[in-house]
Amino acid sequence: MVDAIRAAGTISRVGLIKATGFTAPTISTLVRKLINEGLVVETGHAKSTGGKRRVLLQLDHTSRYAVGVHLDHGVVTYALTNLGGSVVARLSRPGAGAEEPTVVVARIAAEIAALIDGVGVERARVLGVGLVFPGPVGATRGIAGPPDVDLAPALPRWAGFPLGAALEQVTALPVVLDNDSTAAALGEHWTGGFGAATSAAALYMGTGIGAGLVIDGVTYRGPSGNVGELGHVCVAADGPRCWCGARGCLEALAGPAAVVAAARSDRATARAAGLGGGARRPSVVADFAAISRAARRGEPPALALLERSARHVGVAARTLANLMDLEVLVLTGPSLAAAGSVYLPIVRHELRASFSRGTHTVDVRLSRSAATASAIGAAALILESELVPPSHGPRPPERVDERVRLTESAS
Amino acid sequence: MVDAIRAAGTISRVGLIKATGFTAPTISTLVRKLINEGLVVETGHAKSTGGKRRVLLQLDHTSRYAVGVHLDHGVVTYALTNLGGSVVARLSRPGAGAEEPTVVVARIAAEIAALIDGVGVERARVLGVGLVFPGPVGATRGIAGPPDVDLAPALPRWAGFPLGAALEQVTALPVVLDNDSTAAALGEHWTGGFGAATSAAALYMGTGIGAGLVIDGVTYRGPSGNVGELGHVCVAADGPRCWCGARGCLEALAGPAAVVAAARSDRATARAAGLGGGARRPSVVADFAAISRAARRGEPPALALLERSARHVGVAARTLANLMDLEVLVLTGPSLAAAGSVYLPIVRHELRASFSRGTHTVDVRLSRSAATASAIGAAALILESELVPPSHGPRPPERVDERVRLTESAS
Repeated sequence: MVDAIRAAGTISRVGLIKATGFTAPTISTLVRKLINEGLVVETGHAKSTGGKRRVLLQLDHTSRYAVGVHLDHGVVTYALTNLGGSVVARLSRPGAGAEEPTVVVARIAAEIAALIDGVGVERARVLGVGLVFPGPVGATRGIAGPPDVDLAPALPRWAGFPLGAALEQVTALPVVLDNDSTAAALGEHWTGGFGAATSAAALYMGTGIGAGLVIDGVTYRGPSGNVGELGHVCVAADGPRCWCGARGCLEALAGPAAVVAAARSDRATARAAGLGGGARRPSVVADFAAISRAARRGEPPALALLERSARHVGVAARTLANLMDLEVLVLTGPSLAAAGSVYLPIVRHELRASFSRGTHTVDVRLSRSAATASAIGAAALILESELVPPSHGPRPPERVDERVRLTESAS
Repeated sequence: MVDAIRAAGTISRVGLIKATGFTAPTISTLVRKLINEGLVVETGHAKSTGGKRRVLLQLDHTSRYAVGVHLDHGVVTYALTNLGGSVVARLSRPGAGAEEPTVVVARIAAEIAALIDGVGVERARVLGVGLVFPGPVGATRGIAGPPDVDLAPALPRWAGFPLGAALEQVTALPVVLDNDSTAAALGEHWTGGFGAATSAAALYMGTGIGAGLVIDGVTYRGPSGNVGELGHVCVAADGPRCWCGARGCLEALAGPAAVVAAARSDRATARAAGLGGGARRPSVVADFAAISRAARRGEPPALALLERSARHVGVAARTLANLMDLEVLVLTGPSLAAAGSVYLPIVRHELRASFSRGTHTVDVRLSRSAATASAIGAAALILESELVPPSHGPRPPERVDERVRLTESAS
C-alpha cells in the first residue's frame, strides 16, 4: 500500500484498487488507518473523467524517517531519509578501522543522534536503523533465536560480535542488517536508477567490489545473503591469489586496493597522485580518489592504472550480464563516485559484446548518488521492513528481534 | 494442485489443504475435477491418527504424457514422459545439421509419432511437445501476435523460421519452446537432482556450454530468455575470440568444440581417440565422447585435454556460484554424460574456494540422466504449462498460440 502510494506520487482510492488488487472495502480501511497514523494525507482532487472527482492521496513524506548506515573499513556513511526515500541529511565519519567493535558501535550511536538532531527531526518519527557492511555475510548467529550476522572475515576484529543486537541496545531503535552491495541496489531501486528494468544490477566499488542484484524486479539476496560477489568473479584462471583464497579474482587484479598498491609501488605515480608515505595512513577509498583526481588532471600513469582496472571490471560486468540477462547496470559506490567518468565508457564498451545483444542492449549508467547509494539503501531497508508487507519473493533481510535482544542484554 | 500431489507421491485431502493453502471446499471441488478427468485416483487409506482414516490420492501417472525434444546441431534427443515426469521412451536421431528447417521439422514430427506409437501410448493422452534448443534466444517474433523464437545465430540457417508454429502445424499438438540449458535445470528440478536447494544450477555441456538457473526454488529465464550463458563467462580477458564476438569466453577456451579442435590438431591425440578424417563428419558431441573414452582408457594426451577444460569450467562455475550464492550445481548434458568422471572432481575442487563457504558449501553432483536432461526438461515444460497454474514468479516460457497459428497457416 505505502509502496504503491509512494511509487505513484499521488493516487486515488480507485487507483489503489487497480495498483494493489485489493478490494474497495480493504483499500478504504487501510487508507483510513494510514491517514490516522499520519503517513498519508488527502491532497486535492483528480481531474474529472465524467463522474465524481476522486480524492487524491499522497504520502506525508515528513511523517516518518529512516537512518541508513554504511559501515566500511575506511569510512562510515550516514543517510537520513524521509518516508519517500529522499535524503534529508548525510554524514561521513572515519570507518571501522582497527577500533574495538564496542567503541565503534557507541560512536555510531552518537553519530546517528547527531544526524537526527542536526536537522531537527523528532526521535519518535524515526522508524529504525538500516546498517550495511561488506561481505561475505558470515553464518547467522542464533544464540537466543534472533538472527544476527558475523562480519568476519571482511572485518576480522568483528568476528562473533553481535552487531545488530549491540546497536539496538545503544540506539533503542529497531535495526536491520544487510550486505552493502545489495543495499546499493536497493538504493538505486528506490531512487529510480533502474528505470523499468526487471533484471538489473548495481556495480558497487568502495574498498572492494560487489554487485547488488535485482531479479524479476525484486532485490535478491540468495540463500545465505552472499549473492552478487562480483569482486570474486575470476577474470584470469592463473591470476594472483585473492584474500578470499581463490585465484584471479577481479578484486585482486583490479579492485581499488590493487590500484592503490600499484600506484604506491611506482614512485612517479605515487608522487603524481600525492600519495604520501606519512604516519597517518589514509583509507583505500581516499587513496583511490586521489589517483582518480590525478587521472582527471591528465596524469598518464594514473589514468593508465584506472583504465586497466576498468577493462577488467568491464569484462566481469559482461560475465554478470551474460549470466543474468541484465538490462541495466548502474555504476555506484564511493570509488565510482570518484572515477566513474573513466570507468563508464570502458564498461559500456565491454558490454556492447553482451550475449543477449540480439534481443536487447545492456544500459550502463552512473549512479546519481554513487557516494551514498549504500547508505540510502540501508535506510530503504527500514522503510521496506517497517512499511511494506512481506511478499512471496526473496526472503527479507536479517531482522534483529528487539525485545529478545534487549531482554538478553539486560540480564 | 497436480504439482502438490506429484511432489507428495500420495497425499490426503487434508494434506492438500496444508500443502496448498486452499480451503477445504476448494480442495474438494478440485480433487473431484481431477478424478473426473482421470488425472488423479484414490489409492487406499492413510494410517489412522486417532480419527477417521483419510483417503489417499495419487496421480494416475499413465493418464497423460508429454513429449520433450532437444534440438541440437549434432543430435535431436526425444523423451516421452508420463504425468509424473518419468521417462517411458527415449530416442536419439541426427541433429539439425545443414538440412532445411522445413525438412527437419517434418522429420521431427515423424520421429515424435514413432516415439509415441513405439510404446503404444494413445495420441489423445499426449498433452503436447516441449522443444528446446541452444541459445541465444533471438528476438521473439510477433507476426500475428503469438510469440515464437528466432534460432539465429546458434542455428543460422533457421533465421526467421517460425519453428513453434511449424511444429504445431505438422504435429497438431500444442508446442512450448525454451532454451536447452534452462530445460536441463527444469529436468533436474523434476527428477529431484537439486534436492531442497533454493539456489541451484544445471551446468550443461553438449555442443556448447550453458547453465540453467533455479532462483528461490523457481526456474529463472530472465527478461529475454538469455540467462545462464556460462559458456560466455570470460575466464581470460585477453583470450581467443569467441563466435559470440567477445574474447576469452569459457566456450572458446574450453568448450567441447575447442577440446575436439585441439585433439584433431595433434596427430597422436587424434589417433588415440580414433578421430578419423573421413568424409562423413561426426558431430562435436560424438568426437568429444570419443576423446572421453580415450581418457578413460588412460591415454595421457586425451586426459590432459579434458583436465585443462575441466579446470576452466570449474573456474567459471565458481564465478557462477559467487554471483548466485549457489547451494547445488548439477553437471549434465551429453558431453558430461561422457566425461563427467573427469570433470566432477576438478569442478568440486574449484568450488571449495567459493566465497560463501563460511556459510555453506556448494554441493557438486553428476546428473543421473545427463544425456537426456534437456529432453526431460522439455517434456516437463509441457507438464508445467498444461497442468500448473501460472504463479507470480518468473514469466513462463514462450507459448505458441495454437489456434491463431493454425488459422494463419491454413489461410
